[in-house]
Amino acid sequence: MQRSRDDGIGLDELAQAARNHGMPLEALTADLTPAGMHYLLIHYDVPFPRAEDWSLSFEGFDRPMRLSLDDLRSRPRVSAPVTLECAGNGRAMFDERPVSQPWLLEAVGNAEWAGTPLAPLLHEAGVPESTVDVSFRGLDQGIEIDEEQAPYERGLPIDEALRDDVIVAFEMNGRPLPPQHGAPARLVVPGWYGMAHVKWLDRIAALAEPFDGYQNTVSYRMRTDPDEAGEPLGRIRVRSLMAPPGVPTFPERERMVAAGPLTMQGRAWSGSAPIERVEFSADGATTWTDAVVDPAPAPHAWHRWAVDWVAEPGVHELACRATDAAGATQPMEPEPNLGGYANNAVQRVRVTVR
Amino acid sequence: MQRSRDDGIGLDELAQAARNHGMPLEALTADLTPAGMHYLLIHYDVPFPRAEDWSLSFEGFDRPMRLSLDDLRSRPRVSAPVTLECAGNGRAMFDERPVSQPWLLEAVGNAEWAGTPLAPLLHEAGVPESTVDVSFRGLDQGIEIDEEQAPYERGLPIDEALRDDVIVAFEMNGRPLPPQHGAPARLVVPGWYGMAHVKWLDRIAALAEPFDGYQNTVSYRMRTDPDEAGEPLGRIRVRSLMAPPGVPTFPERERMVAAGPLTMQGRAWSGSAPIERVEFSADGATTWTDAVVDPAPAPHAWHRWAVDWVAEPGVHELACRATDAAGATQPMEPEPNLGGYANNAVQRVRVTVR
Repeated sequence: MQRSRDDGIGLDELAQAARNHGMPLEALTADLTPAGMHYLLIHYDVPFPRAEDWSLSFEGFDRPMRLSLDDLRSRPRVSAPVTLECAGNGRAMFDERPVSQPWLLEAVGNAEWAGTPLAPLLHEAGVPESTVDVSFRGLDQGIEIDEEQAPYERGLPIDEALRDDVIVAFEMNGRPLPPQHGAPARLVVPGWYGMAHVKWLDRIAALAEPFDGYQNTVSYRMRTDPDEAGEPLGRIRVRSLMAPPGVPTFPERERMVAAGPLTMQGRAWSGSAPIERVEFSADGATTWTDAVVDPAPAPHAWHRWAVDWVAEPGVHELACRATDAAGATQPMEPEPNLGGYANNAVQRVRVTVR
Repeated sequence: MQRSRDDGIGLDELAQAARNHGMPLEALTADLTPAGMHYLLIHYDVPFPRAEDWSLSFEGFDRPMRLSLDDLRSRPRVSAPVTLECAGNGRAMFDERPVSQPWLLEAVGNAEWAGTPLAPLLHEAGVPESTVDVSFRGLDQGIEIDEEQAPYERGLPIDEALRDDVIVAFEMNGRPLPPQHGAPARLVVPGWYGMAHVKWLDRIAALAEPFDGYQNTVSYRMRTDPDEAGEPLGRIRVRSLMAPPGVPTFPERERMVAAGPLTMQGRAWSGSAPIERVEFSADGATTWTDAVVDPAPAPHAWHRWAVDWVAEPGVHELACRATDAAGATQPMEPEPNLGGYANNAVQRVRVTVR
């Protein structure tokens, strides 16, 4: 079901927005996003498995196996900051959107994820020659339109699953995973939209045919016509966001800024390549100034950017726009699609300077 | 500005809902609410004070003083589970509501808060004989309707401030406060709605006159006419909530339940007295069955309740209703008021059993 911007947000959408949450944009000032400020999109209910009863099964491999949390912890440990973004970020900014989680711009976060690399586990289990996809199943169960009750499950092409930076994570920001982020263990696929980072991981299966579950074949595809197959979502599109300056009004969250010089800052990221350029505009995306872009601390962590701006009294529309090293630039307008996905249009922030 | 249920939720309200968040109701199965699942209502932007630069000033006392976080940590430490609920919980369930945070039912949480008791600090600073209110100011700043930019600040009657269970908290669930919950220190006033538990505490002042700031004189008052003064909100009204059974559909979050016997469970609390009774109904609040209510682990922590139910195929409306030892019972319908506050009407959960 599609709704337009004029309809207002429905109570069904509010039921999602009240339990899921975005990252308050002032957290763009922090290198690492605290667990409780990181965005969360939970399709069904949070399961609460007991870590001591939990294990992760490997099926369809040459040597099927089952690993406990202690087994995972005894494997080599790696840790990296990774920027996660929901594929539906910006959904509520489309003129037409489907009923789903109505994100504005906040469905992002950059946490330090620690765990053990996935590829050695797959090799230990023995990847059959015929494997094309690896599927990752969570413990969270629910019912999608026209489907039976089933756990959340996503497939990943075998070459992505064997990348050496894909991990089975059991820590976030130096602490055991919190329940809402997938405890005791989840997948982290750096550079991919959030739907690939399966939480409450329960089973990993090697598949000789492409994974045909709902989350790959129906959901998370770019379509403009319900009858087309569409392209599956994968890597995060290039995007920048700014921390809105000044202070907010309550409850409207308009921004009031004191006149004078200030430093605007934010973050930028792309799942495909490092960020090469961030531009800032204070006149409604008419003229642009280059911001200083810091190197990213890890290949799939966001870059910090900053630019000086002298705020003159009046109303201004601020905007920022990133370009990655693969040549992709944020568009001025989003690309319409039925799922309301991958809206990486430039952020616009109206401020009143006085 | 008031909106009706038929209007849908506005983008201004969504801007609040996307950054604030409720407790997913499946977390009612947990005694303690994890930090990232606890409800959050943040009026303005989260400030990020450096703990090493931070101090708490005491003004208007006989011996004004300033305490660092280490000073607070060197004082006697107390810890208790406390149920916090937003005064606006249930706002979006009113037929008419103001534009604000559009909560459904999830604005609650029960965490373990540790800190040092407030009363000895006030006595150390010397409470003037004339003191009627104590005000608590946070570091978070914003602009309310018709007001100048100001930090969040709330007054508390001196007799409440001197209660021995009111604490300056610096830990939540055994960890330093996360930024979004008021780091490095916040107030916890067990039994009171959330607006009293001032986060990012910056200044405590003794006042010889009633505190006349916006959050006490304009906001957080029960009014049905804009011209009346109204009664200030204080203690949390009696309420029970159930963890919805079965699994949800996505995105509508309707509940599907397998036929057969199951145990329904939830929590109940009141800021005024222990919970004496929780009743459960499976027929749209027509007939009721008493649930078993556990004692609360602390005077202002929620009670667990449970009741057996045999789910027969069909559509049912479940409901629960609590009564406290002071004789207050949840109403069937909310009490209309301009602020959309204190809606403790019985929860109703529609389920399809099959």
